[in-house]
Amino acid sequence: MSQDVSPISTDRPRAVVLLSGGLDSATVLAMARTEGRSCHALSIDYGQRHRHELTAADGLARSLGAVGHTRLPLDLRALGGSALTADIDVPKGEGDAIEPGIPVTYVPARNLVFLSLACAHAEVLGAREVYIGVNAVDYSGYPDCRPDFIGSFQQTVNLATKAGVEGRGVTIRTPLMDLTKAEIIRHGTAMGVDYAMTHSCYDPDSAGGACGGCDSCRIRRAGFREAGVPDPTRYADRVAR
Amino acid sequence: MSQDVSPISTDRPRAVVLLSGGLDSATVLAMARTEGRSCHALSIDYGQRHRHELTAADGLARSLGAVGHTRLPLDLRALGGSALTADIDVPKGEGDAIEPGIPVTYVPARNLVFLSLACAHAEVLGAREVYIGVNAVDYSGYPDCRPDFIGSFQQTVNLATKAGVEGRGVTIRTPLMDLTKAEIIRHGTAMGVDYAMTHSCYDPDSAGGACGGCDSCRIRRAGFREAGVPDPTRYADRVAR
Repeated sequence: MSQDVSPISTDRPRAVVLLSGGLDSATVLAMARTEGRSCHALSIDYGQRHRHELTAADGLARSLGAVGHTRLPLDLRALGGSALTADIDVPKGEGDAIEPGIPVTYVPARNLVFLSLACAHAEVLGAREVYIGVNAVDYSGYPDCRPDFIGSFQQTVNLATKAGVEGRGVTIRTPLMDLTKAEIIRHGTAMGVDYAMTHSCYDPDSAGGACGGCDSCRIRRAGFREAGVPDPTRYADRVAR
Repeated sequence: MSQDVSPISTDRPRAVVLLSGGLDSATVLAMARTEGRSCHALSIDYGQRHRHELTAADGLARSLGAVGHTRLPLDLRALGGSALTADIDVPKGEGDAIEPGIPVTYVPARNLVFLSLACAHAEVLGAREVYIGVNAVDYSGYPDCRPDFIGSFQQTVNLATKAGVEGRGVTIRTPLMDLTKAEIIRHGTAMGVDYAMTHSCYDPDSAGGACGGCDSCRIRRAGFREAGVPDPTRYADRVAR
């Protein structure tokens, strides 16, 4: 599915923005717009348990001024191996502390696959930048969110593509890499991002209500608290706050 | 779609083999089997014009002894940008000479995407090797077939995955990289590969008959001639030979 979100044509530099529908990628889209980019949002429907994030992405692409939005189906349930794509329970906890190590919500090679697709999209569009909302501070320990990975991918992609070998390669932009979750939320709030439209929970109820206990919910909730910004998340009825 | 091709369980080292259904990947699967690997074939249904190669892959996985075969849908027509995934004519020529440069059959970042998916598959299976039939001798000039790209990807993938950061990363195997097409055909023939089952043509007729004029057909035909092996390719009726 591909849609033109805005009919406005511009001469601004084009960029592809990976838009999951979560808090981080929404902030990145707002940042890229603020930096003057003509943004083409790309969302991957990978069979994720938390499909509500895709609906969130649709609304965010519109409200944050993307000029296009492509939702690409890629059913990673065929490969499995993650609590987000296989019949494995999403771990729940209490408080702010996140278990160290790589959790079972890790999806094998997800950002490698998604960045590869985003760079393919960029090459076709003639975009020279790809934005991704990875963060190595308040995160779930996923290896493909770290700067070492991004730096290495940057080199690889420009060897992989026609644009790259012809000197028109892409630059991977990771504006959230070194920010805390609270800093991300403050930046986004200042830019007018409506975080009530974002979805972060890995294990929502059928209406999209957040579980409050998965790593993603707990990191998000602590971020709002630390930022001093009211948490607009719609939690499931059963969640005690 | 995922299928168990063979019920035989083995203790051989597991490998993922990217199997397009063409001559090269069929040879690689035979090589990996000969090298004692328990092979999990992975074919990507990317909306390619030459869908007959997917049917060929099904038969090859069985006949060449893969223990499993996954066909993963990923509709790259949503991104377009190639004669194989968009409404762009496949160029035709005569004789053996291939035009220099990167042709319009180039699919943006294809091997980057496919290797990323193969490595995700490998991580879930506990496989330590991924085989791919790239070749930088008799090839179409695609940047993602060159050793520079493969070497860089090798580094990147082991930074991207849990297995990689925990020291159980994958090795990318490219046994065809430095072989001529004729050498590939001789190797495969010696291993008993039935090349009549493979499909290489980018622009077949509705029955799968090869056009004889696309780069892929011409490289393949010259390879059989140079190898001194009878060409088993089923050409379209209209093709003069």
